[in-house]
Amino acid sequence: MMGDSNSAPRIVGIVPFDQFELLDVFGPAEMFGLLKSQFQLQMIGPSSEPVASAQGPKVLVDIAFDDVAHLDLIVVPGGIGTRTEVENENLLSWLQKISSGAEYVTSVCTGSALLARAGVLDRRRATSNKWALEWVTSQGPHVDWVKKARWVEDGKFWTSSGVSAGIDMTLALIEKLHGKAFADGIAKGTEYDRHTDSSWDPYAELYEFTREQ
Amino acid sequence: MMGDSNSAPRIVGIVPFDQFELLDVFGPAEMFGLLKSQFQLQMIGPSSEPVASAQGPKVLVDIAFDDVAHLDLIVVPGGIGTRTEVENENLLSWLQKISSGAEYVTSVCTGSALLARAGVLDRRRATSNKWALEWVTSQGPHVDWVKKARWVEDGKFWTSSGVSAGIDMTLALIEKLHGKAFADGIAKGTEYDRHTDSSWDPYAELYEFTREQ
Repeated sequence: MMGDSNSAPRIVGIVPFDQFELLDVFGPAEMFGLLKSQFQLQMIGPSSEPVASAQGPKVLVDIAFDDVAHLDLIVVPGGIGTRTEVENENLLSWLQKISSGAEYVTSVCTGSALLARAGVLDRRRATSNKWALEWVTSQGPHVDWVKKARWVEDGKFWTSSGVSAGIDMTLALIEKLHGKAFADGIAKGTEYDRHTDSSWDPYAELYEFTREQ
Repeated sequence: MMGDSNSAPRIVGIVPFDQFELLDVFGPAEMFGLLKSQFQLQMIGPSSEPVASAQGPKVLVDIAFDDVAHLDLIVVPGGIGTRTEVENENLLSWLQKISSGAEYVTSVCTGSALLARAGVLDRRRATSNKWALEWVTSQGPHVDWVKKARWVEDGKFWTSSGVSAGIDMTLALIEKLHGKAFADGIAKGTEYDRHTDSSWDPYAELYEFTREQ
């Protein structure tokens, strides 16, 4: 059941930064990481130093920005640290460079603010955490922000709504690459009750900002 | 909305081991960790060395077993590493000791096999991942295993089914401690579509083992 056994695994680069949101990183990492024959995870940071999450736990960095030649798939998490990282020119220019050669560029939650500031979402449809949507959209005036969506696919750019939405987006991307039976198998193995409808988004109604727009 | 502001945070000890399942650790860590005024996370390991997950990413250890005097709440994850750890007498004796003084002892997925081998689940109701249930139940002949449950509460022992079930169990425990509005608020903030019914378990029907019993 482990997919196309003849193809080399895709390299999935996950980019934690100081005060990243734990589940934004480890939800997608769980789902991709179960398929070692298909996806090889790399935790990527500005240096070899461990990175602290917003919740406290710290993750090791496998490889530093400057040592990454190519990624097949990129996962940019969100978290309160994005408020600082949107001014981090090293991160933004690296994201811009590495995105250009990647097969897929994904974000979870406010990670789309970083992709927006890197300029790679201009004239593309994208979404984000609904609670933080006013701030996120202010970071990308040329992005076509979708205010109600579990996740949004626009070409190679896949952006998800808040935190746990990253898991549904990841399973949808795995389904695109390897088929529905495969993605459903991963969801069952992790006993995860996945949402397969990208327009399912009750959270869009919860916040005054989205109602006012 | 951040709960009882006058109480000291509960210390939540999470116990990753070599080849732990990422989401078993970081699902509960996300939910508890959002409430820093109420819960303080500690990653606990046999030494100060980082611990590698089954999916690859490595987490830093905050404190070693021997330096932990007391935990209010314990989270024992599962993962393929449990097949080795059930023979790790250092871990099992530490779990037995630290459980006796804890307010709540929880496990995710096959983590209940470790609690069973530590002897703390004897004559208690408990559950685990449904795919691995035959192996898990063989580790605890005196445990009253529940073969269909998202999670099981028996006194201070809370055990969940596979991987993502740990998130629902954690939210249910947070609800017990701080009320439903509080737990629902966390679920909404993380855009997590929580299951609040502990008997919801479609995965129990999926595996031949459970049908044969």
